[in-house]
This record gives sequence, structure tokens and C-alpha cells, in this order.
Amino acid sequence: MSDDGICDDTTGMSLMQEDESYRLLSSYKIPVPHHRVVQNKEEAVAAADAIGYPVVVKVISKQVIHKSDAGGVITGCHDASGVRNAVDLIRSSVIKRYPLATIDGYLVAEQLPPGLELLIGGRTDPSFGKVITFGLGGIYVEMIKDTTMRILPVSSRELSLMIREISGYRLISGYRGVHPYDEPFLLSILEKMVNLFLDHETLAEFDLNPFRLYEERGCIIDARLYCRDSSHSKPDKKGIRRLPVPQSLLSPTGIAVVGASQNPDKIGYTIMRNMLAFSGREYPVNPKGGELFGRNVYRSLNDIPDPVDMVVVAVPASVVPGVITDAAAIGARVVVIVSAGFSEIGVEGKARQDRIKKIAAESGMRLVGPNCLGIIVPSDHLNATFTNVIPAEGKIGFISQSGAVITSVTDWSLREGIGFSSIISVGNQADLDIVDYIRLLGDDEKTSVIIVYVEEIRDGKGFMEVASGVGAKKPIIALKSGSSEHGRIAARSHTGSLAGSYATYQKAFEQCGVIPVHGMREAFLTGALLAEDGYPHANRAIIITNAGGLGVLASDYAEDYGVHLISLSDSLYSDLHSALPPEWSQNNPIDIIGDADIERFSRVFDICIRHKSEWDIAFVIISPVARIDLVSLAHEIIRFCGHVNAMIIGCMLGGVSVEAGSSILRKTHISTFTDLKDAFCAVGTVVKAKERRDKRE
Amino acid sequence: MSDDGICDDTTGMSLMQEDESYRLLSSYKIPVPHHRVVQNKEEAVAAADAIGYPVVVKVISKQVIHKSDAGGVITGCHDASGVRNAVDLIRSSVIKRYPLATIDGYLVAEQLPPGLELLIGGRTDPSFGKVITFGLGGIYVEMIKDTTMRILPVSSRELSLMIREISGYRLISGYRGVHPYDEPFLLSILEKMVNLFLDHETLAEFDLNPFRLYEERGCIIDARLYCRDSSHSKPDKKGIRRLPVPQSLLSPTGIAVVGASQNPDKIGYTIMRNMLAFSGREYPVNPKGGELFGRNVYRSLNDIPDPVDMVVVAVPASVVPGVITDAAAIGARVVVIVSAGFSEIGVEGKARQDRIKKIAAESGMRLVGPNCLGIIVPSDHLNATFTNVIPAEGKIGFISQSGAVITSVTDWSLREGIGFSSIISVGNQADLDIVDYIRLLGDDEKTSVIIVYVEEIRDGKGFMEVASGVGAKKPIIALKSGSSEHGRIAARSHTGSLAGSYATYQKAFEQCGVIPVHGMREAFLTGALLAEDGYPHANRAIIITNAGGLGVLASDYAEDYGVHLISLSDSLYSDLHSALPPEWSQNNPIDIIGDADIERFSRVFDICIRHKSEWDIAFVIISPVARIDLVSLAHEIIRFCGHVNAMIIGCMLGGVSVEAGSSILRKTHISTFTDLKDAFCAVGTVVKAKERRDKRE
Repeated sequence: MSDDGICDDTTGMSLMQEDESYRLLSSYKIPVPHHRVVQNKEEAVAAADAIGYPVVVKVISKQVIHKSDAGGVITGCHDASGVRNAVDLIRSSVIKRYPLATIDGYLVAEQLPPGLELLIGGRTDPSFGKVITFGLGGIYVEMIKDTTMRILPVSSRELSLMIREISGYRLISGYRGVHPYDEPFLLSILEKMVNLFLDHETLAEFDLNPFRLYEERGCIIDARLYCRDSSHSKPDKKGIRRLPVPQSLLSPTGIAVVGASQNPDKIGYTIMRNMLAFSGREYPVNPKGGELFGRNVYRSLNDIPDPVDMVVVAVPASVVPGVITDAAAIGARVVVIVSAGFSEIGVEGKARQDRIKKIAAESGMRLVGPNCLGIIVPSDHLNATFTNVIPAEGKIGFISQSGAVITSVTDWSLREGIGFSSIISVGNQADLDIVDYIRLLGDDEKTSVIIVYVEEIRDGKGFMEVASGVGAKKPIIALKSGSSEHGRIAARSHTGSLAGSYATYQKAFEQCGVIPVHGMREAFLTGALLAEDGYPHANRAIIITNAGGLGVLASDYAEDYGVHLISLSDSLYSDLHSALPPEWSQNNPIDIIGDADIERFSRVFDICIRHKSEWDIAFVIISPVARIDLVSLAHEIIRFCGHVNAMIIGCMLGGVSVEAGSSILRKTHISTFTDLKDAFCAVGTVVKAKERRDKRE
Repeated sequence: MSDDGICDDTTGMSLMQEDESYRLLSSYKIPVPHHRVVQNKEEAVAAADAIGYPVVVKVISKQVIHKSDAGGVITGCHDASGVRNAVDLIRSSVIKRYPLATIDGYLVAEQLPPGLELLIGGRTDPSFGKVITFGLGGIYVEMIKDTTMRILPVSSRELSLMIREISGYRLISGYRGVHPYDEPFLLSILEKMVNLFLDHETLAEFDLNPFRLYEERGCIIDARLYCRDSSHSKPDKKGIRRLPVPQSLLSPTGIAVVGASQNPDKIGYTIMRNMLAFSGREYPVNPKGGELFGRNVYRSLNDIPDPVDMVVVAVPASVVPGVITDAAAIGARVVVIVSAGFSEIGVEGKARQDRIKKIAAESGMRLVGPNCLGIIVPSDHLNATFTNVIPAEGKIGFISQSGAVITSVTDWSLREGIGFSSIISVGNQADLDIVDYIRLLGDDEKTSVIIVYVEEIRDGKGFMEVASGVGAKKPIIALKSGSSEHGRIAARSHTGSLAGSYATYQKAFEQCGVIPVHGMREAFLTGALLAEDGYPHANRAIIITNAGGLGVLASDYAEDYGVHLISLSDSLYSDLHSALPPEWSQNNPIDIIGDADIERFSRVFDICIRHKSEWDIAFVIISPVARIDLVSLAHEIIRFCGHVNAMIIGCMLGGVSVEAGSSILRKTHISTFTDLKDAFCAVGTVVKAKERRDKRE
């Protein structure tokens, strides 16, 4: 729609006239005002007489969308002369504002009493298909943006959660002496609108604003429904039918590197060098033959005498189709195409990409990439990429739509002691896509947490379906970029149709149990925490610290990130009180005072072990003072951890001085942070994810 | 006030009756409804006849505060019988709800037409004194919390900024075809209320809710004014008269350490050990005498043959008063009391603290602490604390209300390459307080940025006055803890009187030009950035990167933190386009593609130098790929930096691989980050602070 209120058809959508909309809504038993369509003043008066005063008169014109702004709506007509004046006034205002508009008639409708103004909307997201939105209506909707959404289809349970999650819910449930509004009725309207929206494929967007809710029942006031013109093809939002992903992608035994080169400036050189440690067999391939890193270089794939299940390709794009054909011929299951020069460079590249996809499909071989960094499986010393960092082995599976993000993250992860089960760079996703990789890592025993960096998900429905299933077994954490205008432009998407889409991704993640995060650091600190500890039993946290100031800051962060600090029970309090000097904080955070030695920490740990049924999460927050040997304290924390089945978080806050202590904790798989805010952010993210799971179960 | 609407006097405040309030408001030419106070039904009718219908009838009763909730307000009385019914109904409702309440009469007031409902409020903050709040009124005020505040006194300019900073301002300025409301009139009402509030010392709190604003003028509807009972002493919110702070606090020449001990478990041992490198003269003092670290130990301060200008005290609290007397006798200017056992332990300690304060005051000697970590001045190798980390020299002056925060921060700072001009642990602030230290660092040439960690500021007015003055010369960054309920409890403050106080601190900081931050990491990264670069000229940023994915993330963070990415000018675009491979991003972020070598970076830097008038901030975001030698790239960035007078931010994102490159940048004073979000958070904080400054100038 254009901004001036006149309908244009560049978007391929047309606005349904209000009386048509009312008819459609009524057929779903959604209440609309009593109304009649008339052509002139006298018909209008007759209609008003029949409906009963007061009435509203609205213009009917295909060209006028924002009727109010155009002077096309007059409310409060209390008698026949009021109705006549209204018709005159509307005609003159509309003609003045839009000289080219055709007036098709007037809608005379009963004027309903005031109520709570709500908004119910629907639109079609390019990735996830139809979504429903809900929030406060009227002028407040745009001002305070208190709306929420769900991707369809959706359960009635979800719809009722949706009603309760807007801040304005307090207005619905009865606020400050105001009677509650009819929430069950509201829910039934949402359900009906969902059905109506899903039943009508060409219905692309709608706005019921306001929907007026009363103490009993409610009624649509203004309805704008937009249909997709049949001339515009509608995006297919059904999930793609997916073939199984060969498990050998993560555990190949024989790998050929096509393009392995003697020239250190070539990517093929770096990949082959990184492949030397591979625990299976690796075969360099280059038409020049010769020797590389002491290995015989085969002139073609066909020359390799042993079975090859994976081929890594780092040759110019023009040569790639031939390599794919050869790979299929020798029975490879997976080809990892590092080479660039495909769909990312335009039409020519797209054609080439389609060609290799077709060759692979014919033989049932699967493709990773093209235009990707490759894959890494640390446990098998498999590094089929051109990075210069070898990440550590661990339990995190990382799927990334950006190679550079992998490079930076793996480099950072080494210092933080974070390890990986596998790292997959998805590239152009000619064949295998993010959804396939999530399925793959879902079945991979070495992976206990999946982290995904996403710029765009094409098959939103497939993603949600697969992520729901996999997420039930192991946590999936997703970082979606492109929340900003510049980010969206950078993704070259059509601004109009993708506007607000970032919010849709976030909702989609929540709806299918994926944990949304907003930065790489948060993603990996949360992932590492989940890999070590899983979800806590519940959200009852204690803080043990030798630093009052850090305790105060920690309390603030706990609240900011939704970590619940318990009040100490009488018996826990008195046990602590008898074990601690009188100046202790008397409260949670348990500040055991700056002069605490290891023994005092140890006494407090013992007390917390005895009271372990009272809490689920313990933060041990340590300021590195001279009197405490952090290595010994680390061993005390390990002992503490051994006696409880809870989430223990070690926070030794500082830099170089805390490294030895922190590193001991990490090596014994105790979650460790050197920054206080990071610790509460990660635990808060996990706690919130757990609470969302519990709410849905 | 108690929650049930009945006034109690535990708060020492009483509610002014509405007619009294109206009188007071009228005397300041603040419009109130026409009204009369009556005693019975017939007087009420007579009043209504005189005022004109419709009218509102309200109960007058000292005991009923929330009149509406008690059924004490009836609106819409359209005739005499309506007024009579209203009086009857009010009487019975109020008596039913509050059997013990006395009804002192009824207020009959004109019923005003609907308008925009606003809230104007005032209260007395325990730290900052009187504040004024403003926001949307009615039920929305509590739901969406769209309010803002200012600490008084305040300029008319600030009041007008205040009106414009609520999200609901769009409703005032004319939203979606609604006429604008009378903003100048609103401003005049705020000015009058500020005068009224400041003129009446005993007026402690008020709520004008709603104040109804019209297209022309406006009117108070409900007014609640609370006066402080004379029996309750009012807090003194005038600034304290401050004596000069001896500059020798930061540059002493002779320091005695009283309590210097042979016993490594004693704090006095650690302090003396830390003092050995001091570039002035240090004198251990201990009644046992002997030798320590090769130095003669004096048995008392009087035995020291040379002049001593600073005394550091680490002896048991009971002995401290004697030491203070001795210190005064030998002419010391400053005593740093590390010993605990003063006001923090209760009444006895408080008395001891008062004693030492008196002794010091009599001789004009100043006290740091007691119960503090001490002070550090790296440039003079002065470390009069018991930390085990020696921080690096730099330009940040750090004042902290928590010793543990100093310990953690200095440890972390070493790894991050952040240095300090001085670090001051304020302890109990018996004599010198945070405000004094800000003054001191304000005049200190080695300090270019001041960072303050605050739990509570007692002299809020003094803080604002001093911070305004110092802040004009050098940036002050403040982290205030205690935003959470638990944090406030931890600070043992009276919950009622301090509720919302965190927000007051944040506003106070903004109002006096202090930069508020929410974490230590943010504080120091922002501080380091300001110490190197100061404020940028304006907020026009470019991003140069070799990683598309990081560019997209960076765009998101730029938006999140308020960093403005410019659109490339035609000439900048075409210069870049001719120098870069065709796949470059064609936009800002300038993605020069993953295969970029040093030379390509260098070409882009040269182009950006030619176009330096078009931007003020450049982020160089690097993914550590094998082909780029980060050390050489660091030198290219240094060259880039040398040609422009702009803020250049080096982001080499990773861990160990980027350390060499990052460290070269840091050593040449180029601001450097290894985490993308941190970089944009710090730059955004600086940019916002700069924009606030500009707005106020």
C-alpha cells in the first residue's frame, strides 16, 4: 500500500471493501456491527432508521484506504439530519482529497459503545508464512508497540499465552478497579480469525483495528483485509520434502581434496595442510600430480585406489561441475564445495549452481556449499577448511551462514576453553541447508548443544518442524542477524516485505523451542553452559561471595536477566549465621566478607550441601584477593559440585590472576565466567528457555 | 501511605485536603476546576447550581486517600437530584469501606471536558532532594511507565526537553490527524509547579493526576499534595560546604605505613610490600621495631626523622585514634585508614569514626576511609593497598565504593591493556567523600577520564554541582549498583523511601553530564575509548570489513547502540567501486570480501582518507583469516589513523591469533576491541553522551 492512503497495486494486493470483509467475518461467526450499504442520502437515512441511532457513516471506495485520514468516516450521527450531513461531508472531503477516487457508496453501521480497543492482525512472512499479531489497539498500538505474534498454525494454548504476554494484558484482566473484559470471548475470536486466515489462501494480510472488547463479548469495528491478486504467485510456505542426510558427513573415512596445491597462496594448499592430521585417510588431487606434504598427489579422483566417501573441492568454479561428475562416478556420498563463483555472483553463477545440484541429485550424492568455509570435526582431526586455527574438541555443534563468523569464533573459543563436536559452514546451501544440518547434528551423539548463526532461513516451516523435534532432545541456540535497517539492506532483501521480519524470527525461535540470543559471545557462553550443565531443575539461585560490592552488582544482574535469588530459609540462615563472622550479609547474596579464607568458603559450601534441596543454582563469585589461593579454592568448588546435583557457576572475576583457578574449573567441567554480567546473562538465557519449555509442556 | 487508601503517619507525611490543594495551586495561577466545599446535600445542590452542571462530587476526609477506590467520587451529576444521590451514595460507600473515617464535607466541582490526561508529580529523593516527574496520566501511566523526571532546580529548557522525551509526546504534538495540544501551556504549568514545590519546604510530594491538557490551555483534575509533618526532621539537601582537598593525596613524597608487619598474614605486611617500589620515601612503623624488607622499622610516627605527608594505617580499630593524633602531631596532610571496625559495624564503630574525624578536623588533616582498600598512583609506583596486582599506568582515574570491585577490575585491566592515573577506594567516607575525590581528579593533570563505582551518594546536590563543573573538563563515567530489589535490600536502605531511586540516580547523572553505564566492562571499555579518542566530532560512522557476516552483525549493533552508519556519497561510492572487486557490498558496511589482502585494505584506507570530511568514526572489523598478517594490517591501520582526525576503532575479532595485532594497536593508542558488541556498546555510549552534551549547550 502506498502511504497516502490510495491503494496501489505494486504490492500485488488489493483491499477488500468493508462490507465484503464484514460478510466474510460474519460467516465465521465473528461479530461485526449491524450495517447496510447505501448509495445516497435518503437510503442512508432509511438504513440508519432500521439500524437505530447513533450510527457511523463510512465511504466505500476502492481507492481510499485510510478512510479516517481522508475525511471518509463520520461517527455519532444521532438523527436523520445528522446522517444527511455526514453523507454530504464525506463526499466533499473525499473528492477534495482524492479527486480521482470513485465513490462506490456508503456504509451505514451501528455505533457501538466504547470498550477496550484491541488490534488483531495477520500477515504473510516471506520465510515463515502466515502469522497472527495481537496487541492494544487504537492510537496506542503504534505508540507503545505493545504487540505480540505467532507463526501459524498455532494451538489454542499458544493463543491464550499470546493474550497474556502483552503488557496491556492488565487492562484485559481488570486493572485498578476496572472490570475485567471477556478474555474467553477474545480467545474465541483469535481462534476463528486463525481458521479464517488459514482457510483462505489468497488472504495475505488483515487488520482488525480496533476490535472492541467488552465485559461480555466484543465486536470488530474496523476491518481491513488484503487479498493477493491471482496474477502474483504466492510463496510456497509448505515444508520441503527432505531426503536423509548421510551420517558420513560427520564421520567420513576417506577424503579427497581436489585442488590441493603446492602454492601456499592457494586455498587448496591450506585445506590440505589442515587435513594432514585427519584420523582417516586423505588424498590430495591435482592434475599436475607430484607430491605434497609427503603424500602422492593423484591426477584425478578416478586414480585414487581406495574408497572415498567425501570430496572437498577448492578449484575454480568453472571446473567444479566436472569434479562433481567424477565424485559421483567414484561413489562419494558428500562433496564439500569451498569454491566461490556460484549463485552469489549472479545469473551465470546461479546456472552453474543449478547444474552441480542436478548432477549430485541424479546420483544421490549430497553437497555442502558451494562458497563455504568447509567443515571441521575436531574429534576426528578433520579440518576441511582454510582457517588457521584448530578448534578444541567439545560438545557444541556449530552451523554458520558466515565463514568469517566461524573464523572469529573458533579463534576466540580457544582462549575461552570452549570446544566443538563439529563446525559446518553452510555457504550458498545449493543442496543441504541449515535445516538438514540441524537434523544431522540432532542425531549426532557427540553433539549435545547446537548453535546456529543465521542470516536468512528460506524454509521457515521446515526449520520450525525440525527444530521442534531436535530441540526436544538437545538445546538449539540461534543468533539471527539483520535486526537493523542497514542489516536488512545488507541482506539485499525487499525492505517492504521483510520489514519486521527479525521479530518474526525471534517469535518463530521461541515457538519451536529454539533459544534466541543477540550476540556471538552470548551464544557460545550459553552453549557452553548448557553443554556442561543442561537446564537447571528450577530457578532458585544463591550467591556466595567474598565481595559485598560484587554481590550488589550480581543482584542487579540477576534481576536484569531473570535469575531468581531465593530468600534464605530460617534454618539455612541460622546455619550460616553460626558459621560466619557477625558482619556477614545476613541475606542472599551470601557475602562472607573480604577476609574470608578457603576454610570459610568450605564451611559455607558444606552448609549449602546440607540445604541442597532449597536451591538449584549457585554462583560462587570471587574477588581475587591476596589471601585466597584460587587454585585451592577451585578444588573446594569441585568438591562442592560433587555433592550436589545442581548448577554451580564459578565466577573468578579478573584477568591473568584468575586464569589458573578458572582453568581448573573448566577442565573439570564446571561452568566458569570471568565477567559477572556474562555469567548472569548466560544463566538467565538458560532459565528463560527452561521456563518457556515448562510453560508449553 | 498505606496501600488500603487510609492515611497513616508512619511516613511522617499528611495529605492536604483537595480544597486546600486547589487554593494553593490557584495562588500560583495553576488552573483548577471551579469548586465549592459543602457540608450536606442542599448546600451541594446550591453549589452545583452556581457552578453549572454537570458536576463531580468528592468526599473530603483526612482518612481517605484513594477516594475513587473508596467510592468517594461521583462524576457526571447532571441535575439537582443527581447531586443529592451522589452525596448519599458517597456517604454510604465511604462509611461501609472505612467505618472509622470522619467525613469532613464534600467538594462539588465543575466537570471538565475530556482532554489528554497527563501526570505531573513531585517527590523528595533521599539523595538528591526534590524531583519533578512527568508522563502520560490515567491508567496508562502505571501500565506503560512512560514517565520521566528531573532533579530540581531545573531550567525551563530542561523542562521542555522533559516534555519531549516521553514516548507519549507524539500524543501531545499531534498524532495521526489529532490536533496538537497546548504544549507551551503545559510547559508553563510545569514551571509553576516547580516554583511552588521549591517555595514550600514542607511540601514533600505531590501528584497531579490527571492534569488534563486541551488544544488550548488545560486544567488540574485531581491533586494530591503531601506535607511533611513538622515533627519529622527534613533531610538537608543543600550541598555540604567543602574544604579544599590536599593535592598531596595523589603525589605524596613521604609515606609512613603504620602496622607494617613481619607477619605475611597481616594486611600491613602486604601493604608495605606493595609500597617498596614507591618513587618517594616509605617508612614502616610498628611498635615492635626491627627491620622489614631491609628497611628500619620505626616504633612510632614520632621517630621518623624526615617529613611525612601521608600516613597509611593498618592497625586494629581500637588503636587508630591514637595513630591519628600522632599523625596530626607530625604534620601529615592525609591519613589513609585501611583498618575496618568503624561505622560499618554499628554504634560503637560509629562513635570511634566520629572521634577520628574530630581529631583530623582539628588539625586540618584529611582522612581517606576508614574501611577501605587504600589508594594507588601507578605513575609514582605508589600502591598503598593490599591487592596483589599492580595496575598499569594510564589516564583513567577510578573512584570506587567497593574494594573488591577494584581488585577484580585492576586484574582484568592488565589483560585488556587498560591503565590508571590513580585508584581510590573510598571506604566509609568518614571525611573525604566521592564528591571530594571527583574534585581532586578533576584537577589532576594525569587523569583524563574519571570512572566512579557508586552504591550510594549521600550529598546528591554536591555531587551534581561538582560533577557538572568537572565534567565540562573531562568525562565522568558512573556505574551505580542497586537497581534491583535485592540490590537495594543489600544496601539496607529503607525500601519505601528509596524505591525508584536508581532511576533518580540515572537522571541525575544525565542532568549533570555524567555518563551512566550498567556494567564494569562497559565502564572501562568506554573509559579507555574516551581516554584515547575523546568525543567524536559527530555521529557519522563507516565500517570497513573483510567479513560480510560480521558486517551484518555490526549493522545490527550500530542500530542497537545508536551509532549512525552513513550512506556512501556518490563520489565515495565510485572511488571504492573502482578500487574493489565487483562483489564488494556496494554499501556501508564496506565489505571488501574475504579474500582481501593488506593491499586492498590499504587502498580502501586511502580512499577513506581522501573522503575524511564525510565521516567521523571508522570501525575496521577484521576476521582473522590465514591470508592476512594482522601485525602488518595493524601498521596499516596506524598509518590510516595518522592521516585523519577521527575516531578509528580497530576490531580484530578472535582470541589468541589476534593478540599481536591488537596489542600493536593498543600500544599506539588506537582504540581496540576483540568483541564486536563491546565495540559498538562503548562507541554508542560515547556518542549518546556527546549528543546529550550538544543538546544542552
